[in-house]
Amino acid sequence: MKILVIHGPNLNLLGTRETEVYGSRSLDEINTSLNNLAQELGINIVIEQSNHEGEIVDLIQNSLEFSAILINPAAYTHTSIAIRDAIAAVNTPAVEVHLSNIHTREEFRQKSLIAPVSAGQISGFGLESYLLGLRAATYIVNAKKDRS
Amino acid sequence: MKILVIHGPNLNLLGTRETEVYGSRSLDEINTSLNNLAQELGINIVIEQSNHEGEIVDLIQNSLEFSAILINPAAYTHTSIAIRDAIAAVNTPAVEVHLSNIHTREEFRQKSLIAPVSAGQISGFGLESYLLGLRAATYIVNAKKDRS
Amino acid sequence: MKILVIHGPNLNLLGTRETEVYGSRSLDEINTSLNNLAQELGINIVIEQSNHEGEIVDLIQNSLEFSAILINPAAYTHTSIAIRDAIAAVNTPAVEVHLSNIHTREEFRQKSLIAPVSAGQISGFGLESYLLGLRAATYIVNAKKDRS
Amino acid sequence: MKILVIHGPNLNLLGTRETEVYGSRSLDEINTSLNNLAQELGINIVIEQSNHEGEIVDLIQNSLEFSAILINPAAYTHTSIAIRDAIAAVNTPAVEVHLSNIHTREEFRQKSLIAPVSAGQISGFGLESYLLGLRAATYIVNAKKDRS
Amino acid sequence: MKILVIHGPNLNLLGTRETEVYGSRSLDEINTSLNNLAQELGINIVIEQSNHEGEIVDLIQNSLEFSAILINPAAYTHTSIAIRDAIAAVNTPAVEVHLSNIHTREEFRQKSLIAPVSAGQISGFGLESYLLGLRAATYIVNAKKDRS
Amino acid sequence: MKILVIHGPNLNLLGTRETEVYGSRSLDEINTSLNNLAQELGINIVIEQSNHEGEIVDLIQNSLEFSAILINPAAYTHTSIAIRDAIAAVNTPAVEVHLSNIHTREEFRQKSLIAPVSAGQISGFGLESYLLGLRAATYIVNAKKDRS
Amino acid sequence: MKILVIHGPNLNLLGTRETEVYGSRSLDEINTSLNNLAQELGINIVIEQSNHEGEIVDLIQNSLEFSAILINPAAYTHTSIAIRDAIAAVNTPAVEVHLSNIHTREEFRQKSLIAPVSAGQISGFGLESYLLGLRAATYIVNAKKDRS
Amino acid sequence: MKILVIHGPNLNLLGTRETEVYGSRSLDEINTSLNNLAQELGINIVIEQSNHEGEIVDLIQNSLEFSAILINPAAYTHTSIAIRDAIAAVNTPAVEVHLSNIHTREEFRQKSLIAPVSAGQISGFGLESYLLGLRAATYIVNAKKDRS
Amino acid sequence: MKILVIHGPNLNLLGTRETEVYGSRSLDEINTSLNNLAQELGINIVIEQSNHEGEIVDLIQNSLEFSAILINPAAYTHTSIAIRDAIAAVNTPAVEVHLSNIHTREEFRQKSLIAPVSAGQISGFGLESYLLGLRAATYIVNAKKDRS
Amino acid sequence: MKILVIHGPNLNLLGTRETEVYGSRSLDEINTSLNNLAQELGINIVIEQSNHEGEIVDLIQNSLEFSAILINPAAYTHTSIAIRDAIAAVNTPAVEVHLSNIHTREEFRQKSLIAPVSAGQISGFGLESYLLGLRAATYIVNAKKDRS
Amino acid sequence: MKILVIHGPNLNLLGTRETEVYGSRSLDEINTSLNNLAQELGINIVIEQSNHEGEIVDLIQNSLEFSAILINPAAYTHTSIAIRDAIAAVNTPAVEVHLSNIHTREEFRQKSLIAPVSAGQISGFGLESYLLGLRAATYIVNAKKDRS
Amino acid sequence: MKILVIHGPNLNLLGTRETEVYGSRSLDEINTSLNNLAQELGINIVIEQSNHEGEIVDLIQNSLEFSAILINPAAYTHTSIAIRDAIAAVNTPAVEVHLSNIHTREEFRQKSLIAPVSAGQISGFGLESYLLGLRAATYIVNAKKDRS
Repeated sequence: MKILVIHGPNLNLLGTRETEVYGSRSLDEINTSLNNLAQELGINIVIEQSNHEGEIVDLIQNSLEFSAILINPAAYTHTSIAIRDAIAAVNTPAVEVHLSNIHTREEFRQKSLIAPVSAGQISGFGLESYLLGLRAATYIVNAKKDRS
Repeated sequence: MKILVIHGPNLNLLGTRETEVYGSRSLDEINTSLNNLAQELGINIVIEQSNHEGEIVDLIQNSLEFSAILINPAAYTHTSIAIRDAIAAVNTPAVEVHLSNIHTREEFRQKSLIAPVSAGQISGFGLESYLLGLRAATYIVNAKKDRS
Repeated sequence: MKILVIHGPNLNLLGTRETEVYGSRSLDEINTSLNNLAQELGINIVIEQSNHEGEIVDLIQNSLEFSAILINPAAYTHTSIAIRDAIAAVNTPAVEVHLSNIHTREEFRQKSLIAPVSAGQISGFGLESYLLGLRAATYIVNAKKDRS
Repeated sequence: MKILVIHGPNLNLLGTRETEVYGSRSLDEINTSLNNLAQELGINIVIEQSNHEGEIVDLIQNSLEFSAILINPAAYTHTSIAIRDAIAAVNTPAVEVHLSNIHTREEFRQKSLIAPVSAGQISGFGLESYLLGLRAATYIVNAKKDRS
Repeated sequence: MKILVIHGPNLNLLGTRETEVYGSRSLDEINTSLNNLAQELGINIVIEQSNHEGEIVDLIQNSLEFSAILINPAAYTHTSIAIRDAIAAVNTPAVEVHLSNIHTREEFRQKSLIAPVSAGQISGFGLESYLLGLRAATYIVNAKKDRS
Repeated sequence: MKILVIHGPNLNLLGTRETEVYGSRSLDEINTSLNNLAQELGINIVIEQSNHEGEIVDLIQNSLEFSAILINPAAYTHTSIAIRDAIAAVNTPAVEVHLSNIHTREEFRQKSLIAPVSAGQISGFGLESYLLGLRAATYIVNAKKDRS
Repeated sequence: MKILVIHGPNLNLLGTRETEVYGSRSLDEINTSLNNLAQELGINIVIEQSNHEGEIVDLIQNSLEFSAILINPAAYTHTSIAIRDAIAAVNTPAVEVHLSNIHTREEFRQKSLIAPVSAGQISGFGLESYLLGLRAATYIVNAKKDRS
Repeated sequence: MKILVIHGPNLNLLGTRETEVYGSRSLDEINTSLNNLAQELGINIVIEQSNHEGEIVDLIQNSLEFSAILINPAAYTHTSIAIRDAIAAVNTPAVEVHLSNIHTREEFRQKSLIAPVSAGQISGFGLESYLLGLRAATYIVNAKKDRS
Repeated sequence: MKILVIHGPNLNLLGTRETEVYGSRSLDEINTSLNNLAQELGINIVIEQSNHEGEIVDLIQNSLEFSAILINPAAYTHTSIAIRDAIAAVNTPAVEVHLSNIHTREEFRQKSLIAPVSAGQISGFGLESYLLGLRAATYIVNAKKDRS
Repeated sequence: MKILVIHGPNLNLLGTRETEVYGSRSLDEINTSLNNLAQELGINIVIEQSNHEGEIVDLIQNSLEFSAILINPAAYTHTSIAIRDAIAAVNTPAVEVHLSNIHTREEFRQKSLIAPVSAGQISGFGLESYLLGLRAATYIVNAKKDRS
Repeated sequence: MKILVIHGPNLNLLGTRETEVYGSRSLDEINTSLNNLAQELGINIVIEQSNHEGEIVDLIQNSLEFSAILINPAAYTHTSIAIRDAIAAVNTPAVEVHLSNIHTREEFRQKSLIAPVSAGQISGFGLESYLLGLRAATYIVNAKKDRS
Repeated sequence: MKILVIHGPNLNLLGTRETEVYGSRSLDEINTSLNNLAQELGINIVIEQSNHEGEIVDLIQNSLEFSAILINPAAYTHTSIAIRDAIAAVNTPAVEVHLSNIHTREEFRQKSLIAPVSAGQISGFGLESYLLGLRAATYIVNAKKDRS
């Protein structure tokens, strides 16, 4: 089982960026935690980060070899129909995660364009959101296998 | 560590109720899974279900002995300021879970009055939402201990 | 054929309460008329009244032995997703009735959360709304039988 | 007692038109049922159908000899202030009926311009909506007589 | 100078219709007053009334021989883009009048689709609205002549 | 009969100000026309202009000796509840006039806070709006006398 | 193959009406172009124009012998649920065309009640909108034949 | 004179709950102050608290022996039409009080469903809101007596 | 302790103005009652009234010698950001009072621009609103003293 | 005559992506059809596809050698002011096409940011939308030539 | 070159008023800086401050001798159509400045009624906003001279 | 002191693009003016332009060596949360400038997503907006230095 992890715009600045909102963990630390959990769960993960909406669309379009996508679309959560359409266009199930609890922030951050095409959404648990998301993605892939 | 699990209104009908939306698992099966995971994680859980808004307020008010609350407020997610105020009033951190992906349903189900007073929200993974929620709650309590 | 009649909050005050809006008939008079018509139609009815949202949810959940529900949700018409979900969760068809014409009243009374899960809605005919509603419920149950 | 029955636009296509929404009964069948019930209730009815807003206004203006109007304004329910004003202008009480449950359909079908000038509204019971409406109209006329 | 006077739907009922809103003058009395004033001002008027939106569009399209239109669009004020487009399509200037003060009535009566294509609007003076409107129309035609 | 004419803010600039919107007549020319018509109608008028909301409120409060108020509230039409309340507080009937057709201008100019407390509104006829307004005011005072 | 072409209200004035918006072609010129193209495509067309909403409903109801409808609903595009319902009621596929680009005009012209029941919409190409629409209608009928 | 004091949901937690919003006084301290003032004013008070909407409806329905109701509906202020209807249904005048200034808080807390059926509203003075409310209730009862 | 009492626009007409809304007490009677209560409470009050927004801003700016402001902003409650900013700019705590229950009136009267910068709001008790407000202001000043 | 054809994001997946919405034709098939029609019409076309908003802006900026642009902006239709501004900035006329009827889909897909700067819009005819669009573009260029 | 500087309501309190929002500079310090820069730029300035909307309208109306207006309308930015109309009525170009960044404050402060009639707007730079505004005004006057 | 100047999408077309809105200066002319002023102020500037949202995010992320950012986000002003988040994420203060007065244009151009994370905003002065912006940025950096 291979899972594609996509970090959206500005997440490469984690640990230095608005730490009162996003926590003090760097993206490297999150990726290390993700790799450790992947090993524990016996799955493979590939991790990408991009500030470009079009590149994220490309990444999703090229996810055929993956069983699931774990995505933190960051700012594009609220503005990108292109990423939404890309997820709807491919057959790979997606899990949407957010470090902060988006429901407690600015009005425009409380609406996700991505959620309606995702299997589910996890938000508010910081680094742990990613780890829960990886478990969720694994669960979905296994459940799908069980049904077939 | 003791965690209080609250199932909101109509969840007692799970397994027979709108199975295309909520899945075919009964509440008993969910509770069994929760108990199994609790044992695996080495924590205690107490599980309650109520159709009454006021009773859920009472349950939250009496949660002093618990380290965290895992709550699926169901219909009250979108209408109960009383439950929101109860969570804000006690010191126990709350994790909000939903079986279905509320962001893909009727407009009025896409807004949670509870989310702004919760640590985080997990929705869309069926039974697995609860299990991820229990892990999230455990993580929050441990993280709090680590800081103190 | 057994039909469950549910009177929502404050309907126990009928006859004394805002008579210019709700008419001068007491709830007892309405119930007598309902019983008379039930006898005429050759059906059984059980009548309940509650001011508690949760109790009405419980009543609906326990309606398995009934062929239909005749409900005047009163104030909960406009605020209770829990009652809506309860009706959607059980298999019993529901008929929604209102004494006053809710479409001529305050903006917030013109939207029914219950209507989308009901077979139909009757409003504005005072006591007669209930009698028409009982006929409608009888008709629906018979139509269902005819189809099977 | 004479009651005027008005069928609004496109109702002449009933039975062939969107049968999953409006049922398989033709307008003739509905009219036969109405005539049968009228005979049973001992009242006279006159039935009209028009696709023209202006003609329906004319019909209502000429309803002086009738004790009540039973109207399914169909599409004009949501767009015709002229029909609303006509009903408000004459002294004949009106009962508004709909085959489908308009509260479960498109947003623009959930608001009736006619309801605020009608005695009451019945929607969702198919052909039975008309029969219940005829009973309601009869009831209103009798109640008026009783008061005088 | 010839001026076309158009009375919209339900105005033929004036004097009997909702007299607390529209006053006790019949349409005949209004027309007599208009004819008297026309004579006083030395102009010709032709008066039409219709309950049909399409007929009013036809009337406006055929207004080539007239110098101005004096119109009380009544209910169509708020719903008819067709009448608005007809006025915009012909070169005849229009004066919009209303018996009642539409700005004090239901929300939907406070917006006129006709006003943006009219020279001006007069509302609230009962029968006098028409007489002021006839003066306004005469003034506009004369002012136009003066400019040419 | 004495009528108070109130010109609101910036009307003192008429003739030089945005002449494509408000015409090329100066306020003096309008006042001369008003005085001529007043003489013709055999009534007295007093004319005031102010750029100050509070002063206009004072003027209205001191209108006891007048039979009617003819007011062009200009910018305060859309923002002054104080002027609205002053008109509602005194017993003097008010006629609201506008030079331009406010219904064809910016959204915020299409709503009048004054209209609901005025007898009626005349807009769009330039200088003629005032003359029609003076006739309307005279008519209202006479109609009132006739009734008493 | 027979296609019914319906021109909505005020289109009979084309060529003289607001030529800066609708162009200088008369309706006759458009009809000639349509007939020429029909001949080129080897299909029959029947062309109708009406200012009456009800007549357009009648025309659509009587379109059984036609393979498709090409309609420019003009003003009724934005106000007529009756025409929408008529199109939904018959089995004839419809193509909606507009001379001007409705998306660049007043807010209320940017929403089409007809589009949701049409196969597609073409707007902004003047006379060419009709010719493209006729090609589109022909294409749809042929595609349907191919599938059967 | 007997006055019923009703404390809504979560007010039993006062003194420990969000003290920066609601102050450090416990409900007992508030009740003691109320009793002292009642004694000073020479009136009787009965004090109730409930987290259950239905129970508060019951309390209001049973208030026949009381001259007035002093109510802090807390969270139900913004969601309970049932409590509003109960107050409208009984003849007992109600005074609505709030500890915090609800007009400075979340949007949803700035609208009271209870205010339109209350004699008046007092908010923002902490414990003093109750004492002012008790004075207001006493004043209303006395004023009523004076009129009779 | 000195308290500044500010009466907003049109309050000088009290007793003659819309007495069904504002009661039959004149402003002098209210001021006498305020002076009597001030004497009873052992405080000094200075009373001002103005119809001018700018003057009320000036009064508030010059309130340095006062311990608190008791203000009924009347019409300016809903339109004056300048008064709001003045209250926010000075250090004097303000109590907002209204004779009528603003929550039961026109939509635009239900929103107070002043409330967010006031300590609290009292509305609906007629003359008594002022007396309760004076007590509230006294209480706030004393509470502030107690804390310091 | 040279026409630039731009396919927006995710259109490279056509034929495999949500075929119930977008049809089973691949982008290659569409391009072949476009090339065939171009040959038939005697014009040159250049076809581009990009998932990147910025690249599409670049393509439009570099369209100087082209007589017209045929663009399906896909997801960027509803979110890209940058593409809108690019079209407005260059002198090349644009034709906007959509495979599906965007007026029957999610609310956010019913508003085009591109339409106001396009000559016209064609939507709902699948592959045929492009072919009609190419004809429309050809027509516009020729019409422009005719005028010069 | 003479430039009129207008400070709106409450700006006379600068330096003492909400210093965390508006900074610690007094109005005198700002005026000194403005005078210094004026001298440096070789222009004359006249500085006014008023809390009265009407006075600011008067000031603008009397600005004929000035080449430009530099205005901080403060609270009236968001409520005064009268000031907007005054600026539109005179020929003097206006530059709008704000000390704080109004786009980061309450919703109602984010909309300027003045901006649409100003040459441009500068906000957020504290005292420097005025100095930049004076440069901008100088630039505009010079640019105008250059063109003539 | 080094300041990064970022020109957003389509600004490379300046001088040819919609010159009635954006003026006739080319981007090169603006850059020359900026360089001249930078030299005059004794600061260094680096100028970038991009049509790609992601590239602008990258530019901002790499601005560590700069003391401030001067940005004209153009179309992305209204759609890019990613650019907003990038500015919030780095510590470099930003000044937002616009050539045209965005407050006088389409509704969607009147809201800036960038303003809430900028120090301030300058719009409407054409090329001069940039020069004022450079002064503003310089001022902010110096003010910051002064404080440290």
